[in-house]
Amino acid sequence: MSQFWSTRAQELDPYTPGEQPQDQQYIKLNTNENPYPPSPKAIAAMREAACDDMRLYPDPHSATLKQAIAEYYSLELDQVFIGNSSDEVLAHTFVALLKQDKPLLFPDISYSFYPAFCSLFDINFKHIPLMDDFTINIEDYQQSTSGGIGSILFPNPNAPSGIALGLDEIETLLKANPDAPVVIDEAYVDFGAETAVSLINDYPNLLVTQTFSKSRSLAGLRVGFALGSADLIEGLERVKNSFNPYPLDRAAIAGATESIKDKAHFEENCKKIITTRKRISKALEEMDFWVLDSKTNFIFARPNQANAEKLYLSLKKEGVLIRYFNAPRIAGFLRISIGTDEEMNIFLDKLTAAINVA
Amino acid sequence: MSQFWSTRAQELDPYTPGEQPQDQQYIKLNTNENPYPPSPKAIAAMREAACDDMRLYPDPHSATLKQAIAEYYSLELDQVFIGNSSDEVLAHTFVALLKQDKPLLFPDISYSFYPAFCSLFDINFKHIPLMDDFTINIEDYQQSTSGGIGSILFPNPNAPSGIALGLDEIETLLKANPDAPVVIDEAYVDFGAETAVSLINDYPNLLVTQTFSKSRSLAGLRVGFALGSADLIEGLERVKNSFNPYPLDRAAIAGATESIKDKAHFEENCKKIITTRKRISKALEEMDFWVLDSKTNFIFARPNQANAEKLYLSLKKEGVLIRYFNAPRIAGFLRISIGTDEEMNIFLDKLTAAINVA
Repeated sequence: MSQFWSTRAQELDPYTPGEQPQDQQYIKLNTNENPYPPSPKAIAAMREAACDDMRLYPDPHSATLKQAIAEYYSLELDQVFIGNSSDEVLAHTFVALLKQDKPLLFPDISYSFYPAFCSLFDINFKHIPLMDDFTINIEDYQQSTSGGIGSILFPNPNAPSGIALGLDEIETLLKANPDAPVVIDEAYVDFGAETAVSLINDYPNLLVTQTFSKSRSLAGLRVGFALGSADLIEGLERVKNSFNPYPLDRAAIAGATESIKDKAHFEENCKKIITTRKRISKALEEMDFWVLDSKTNFIFARPNQANAEKLYLSLKKEGVLIRYFNAPRIAGFLRISIGTDEEMNIFLDKLTAAINVA
Repeated sequence: MSQFWSTRAQELDPYTPGEQPQDQQYIKLNTNENPYPPSPKAIAAMREAACDDMRLYPDPHSATLKQAIAEYYSLELDQVFIGNSSDEVLAHTFVALLKQDKPLLFPDISYSFYPAFCSLFDINFKHIPLMDDFTINIEDYQQSTSGGIGSILFPNPNAPSGIALGLDEIETLLKANPDAPVVIDEAYVDFGAETAVSLINDYPNLLVTQTFSKSRSLAGLRVGFALGSADLIEGLERVKNSFNPYPLDRAAIAGATESIKDKAHFEENCKKIITTRKRISKALEEMDFWVLDSKTNFIFARPNQANAEKLYLSLKKEGVLIRYFNAPRIAGFLRISIGTDEEMNIFLDKLTAAINVA
């Protein structure tokens, strides 16, 4: 604590990103990065943007990127908001759209950044427990059952469970809460879930956020976006233009634009990851893990006969990083990002060895 | 207004960036961009960073860049904070360090973004009028004269006046206000003013912010930083890690790191701009302008015999964009960014023609 920190800064409980140890080379299955490279067209565009024009400000509206995203999703330009990562997009969403007088609802097991945003932006929140099978029960997100709703937020598919809600359930939720902003964080949607974008024109309270970090292999480029009614997007733009009017640099605008245009590369990568995920899920089940039904680029699974934390530590010693959360309800689970098939085979070998020792 | 905007979003008064008209090719002397290219080493580093590794998250600490900045200024690593533009650095500063119970003081004529931050982050502020000659009078920034100080913020050199305070005056201010965070926004300091960095180890309440956008010709890369006591920097890190833990992409970290290491390129560019500024200042004086003593890459000047707004519009019609502020006290002035010598000669020709017509 410092006498020069504001009261807000003193009260913060900042987010802890996944570990990035530098002591040896690891097979990194701990931060849900994509094992396959981004579109070569995106890389070429970034290289081209790295030129003398860097002396000039970028387009504050990232118009070429906005246009490419709008075309991809058949939306209008004013239904797209761009930010420096989907974390920034979510941060602006908290300020621009989420109510302060009534609580924000999100699942008790979810993206661990949400409480950090609530603390930073002074938003009251209420955890809604997942069901015992780690699914979201949308009946819990109603005025009558929850005791008052300001806003609703959850990832779909959820993290770290990996489980997806169907579009019909999301529509039911939107219908039941026409006055509450409903934010669906679709960071992992491209790996097998259904996007809620098709509902945007019918539900002015729906905001969908997405990222280039996972399915588009661009975690290193920091680009996220939100899709929603022109009304919601204008609210986000107001906050952005009071914070940092030029959030994306020239390389990021150029690279992300070409990335979203390269549909073939994207689809091929997603397909490979889904295939690998299915294979590894089956292998884990055969090793007596309870494997949740993932629609993401990771698997969340519980060893029925072994201690999860010990397995995590054994694998780390063997050069394979996965994620272990020492948190209520999920302390028995491991989260394993989907790597290349070669990496996953090493993971399975090391895991088998660790279980046999334990 | 929308029913889905938060009260905060409804009350915002967002910043308006300088115009970027697309209707014709302009000589752009309106947004203080550097007319000379960034370091070739910076460009090479960005191109190299645009590779398959973009699939991986960047270093959340931007450690190589932090190290390079710390070395450049002979500071410790924990005295450096990095952000996605100095606007973002300032935004986090408002949240982390500025008091909410007593007013923030800044000059009435200053960077027009400050009030937008105050509105977004609910910080009360008090404008301290500049003297009639547009200099800051540091005696106005004292508890006794100002009626209570929470924090102090001003650009040095100031914008759009371009006038710099000396280090002795800044030290007097720091001594008089040991309990108030004092933030010096040094966006333009490299063009002839003296940085306050040398005072950091003596004054734990001093925060200095800088940017790669002006003197390092990297407005398109969005990199800013803050320098101060480890205590102040930790406050900023807490906010950053509750907002977006990975603010800089891989290309930005790589490019900015090489840029700050290339001292020769940087010094050469600054020298050229200072030489041109002196020449143009003299020419404007000879055309009967009141030219303020600029230590920046722009000139703020008032035509004594002509209407500033009309001159701005005439030049725009002729393809030369400069900046006109329709604001109290400075509506008679023009702000002219320093371009290449060739661009400035065209500017002078067009200006002479515009004055002769008027």
